[in-house]
Amino acid sequence: MYKALKKDLKKIRESVNIRVDRFLPRKDEYPKNIHKAIRHSLFAGGKGIRSYMLIKIYSIFCEDVEPIMPLAVAFEMLHTYTLIHDDLPYLDNDDFRRGKPTCHKLFGEDVALLGGDTLLIYAFDIISQMEVADKVKAEILQKFSAMAGARGLIGGQWEDVNCEGKTVDKQKLAYIHSKKTAEFIKLTATLACLLAEASEEDTELLEEYAGNIGLGFQIVDDILDIEGTFQERGKSIGKDLESKKITYPALYGLQESKDEVEKLMMRAKEILDKFHDKGLMLQRFTDYIYLSKW
Amino acid sequence: MYKALKKDLKKIRESVNIRVDRFLPRKDEYPKNIHKAIRHSLFAGGKGIRSYMLIKIYSIFCEDVEPIMPLAVAFEMLHTYTLIHDDLPYLDNDDFRRGKPTCHKLFGEDVALLGGDTLLIYAFDIISQMEVADKVKAEILQKFSAMAGARGLIGGQWEDVNCEGKTVDKQKLAYIHSKKTAEFIKLTATLACLLAEASEEDTELLEEYAGNIGLGFQIVDDILDIEGTFQERGKSIGKDLESKKITYPALYGLQESKDEVEKLMMRAKEILDKFHDKGLMLQRFTDYIYLSKW
Repeated sequence: MYKALKKDLKKIRESVNIRVDRFLPRKDEYPKNIHKAIRHSLFAGGKGIRSYMLIKIYSIFCEDVEPIMPLAVAFEMLHTYTLIHDDLPYLDNDDFRRGKPTCHKLFGEDVALLGGDTLLIYAFDIISQMEVADKVKAEILQKFSAMAGARGLIGGQWEDVNCEGKTVDKQKLAYIHSKKTAEFIKLTATLACLLAEASEEDTELLEEYAGNIGLGFQIVDDILDIEGTFQERGKSIGKDLESKKITYPALYGLQESKDEVEKLMMRAKEILDKFHDKGLMLQRFTDYIYLSKW
Repeated sequence: MYKALKKDLKKIRESVNIRVDRFLPRKDEYPKNIHKAIRHSLFAGGKGIRSYMLIKIYSIFCEDVEPIMPLAVAFEMLHTYTLIHDDLPYLDNDDFRRGKPTCHKLFGEDVALLGGDTLLIYAFDIISQMEVADKVKAEILQKFSAMAGARGLIGGQWEDVNCEGKTVDKQKLAYIHSKKTAEFIKLTATLACLLAEASEEDTELLEEYAGNIGLGFQIVDDILDIEGTFQERGKSIGKDLESKKITYPALYGLQESKDEVEKLMMRAKEILDKFHDKGLMLQRFTDYIYLSKW
């Protein structure tokens, strides 16, 4: 069912990877271990959902995706930095990620710490080198750093770790999901539309679309931690329950979680309808995110 | 002897701290621990050498230092992020810094990890908000991230940790000192001159000056680890020897280290002479860095 989509995901992932490869120092360049570790995590087989959405939303408006490619690389770098630091024993203490040993298991905690730092810096570095109007660049940087900082992603990471084993309410869960995943993914729409000079109306719609995907993706991830298998997920199963991490199903129950996912999906697809043919591949992508895994 | 200088250092440190305070979320803002930890480390009594040099070099050319203040904040944030991550048990495992418990000792390793990440992001954030020509901003960002990345600071940090207990040569030591300290401090001259629209000749001279201060400062630090006291240094003494860290005196001997410092100082002061009265306070500062401590 998802043959065309999977081909498209793969094609875009590969073309992003080529840019990543071109931007990064070679793996034998000094300091070797850091560069090896970064490459390991960046090329560990992630689907590249953030860069895919960024590029596909941009291409609703513009045929030539070249101008947005550096930003796609920055999104993958920022995402990978959060994974590397999250997996460290100080935070989630995860041994597997995408079916492979995590960065610190392979390269040591010192390398993983500095490797994550490096990716964070590289993400800003590649944005600062983009060939776009300087004013647009400054706006991208501001939105990107606001999303990544303590009022954004890091706030979500912190609460996620901090709430383990505690009783938390729905408001706190919404905060974590929003900061850790949904706003990150929503920013793909904001910045794709900014670069594509999309109308305010289209920008708002696509931000809502991306926000729905972000939240839905997080809930699906929580559900799969209960219903999935190691093989499907590439990481340890039941770990959320074991570590008493709060999840959507834990607070709302499995059925309500699935209903919520369906609601988000319906609205996401309704938005895409407005873009007709231009949104076709994103329609498939939306189905895939929401339905293909259980 | 250094009364006027100390007053000036204090005045500038305070005015930078006011900007830091204004930029940061309040310490009771969510996520509280992260913001408390960041404030602890930023206000832990560091001399603020980087921001001082940036501002003083800039004011050789421009009276109003307002335009460079956000960059001064960014330098202190980047510097503090490296200290927080360096002190973590994964790297140097230090319990004291500037006479106070290190960030992770007070707030936990998880907070210190995310707090360091936050400061790194904030450094880019505040630069991206600077009120300078967008072209200049892009250039600042590129130079700043190049210095901070794995080809710069992080490369130096990695080799510094990685070489503990190993036999290393003078070339490796020069690499570490250059990447970890000297190039960082040299960048204060590069960017101060860029913002002040200084001539190419003046920029090169002041870069040499700042590079000398950076290297000299590092050698002095190594010497003080042998000859200093805990009270003078605010951190554990003899730690370099104990952890078999390579230092300048270990490779060159104490006397040759002191001679090298003197040579660097003479050249630094010779450069400042060319700026006459405008360089007076930096003359005092140079003496202070090199001579006041042994």
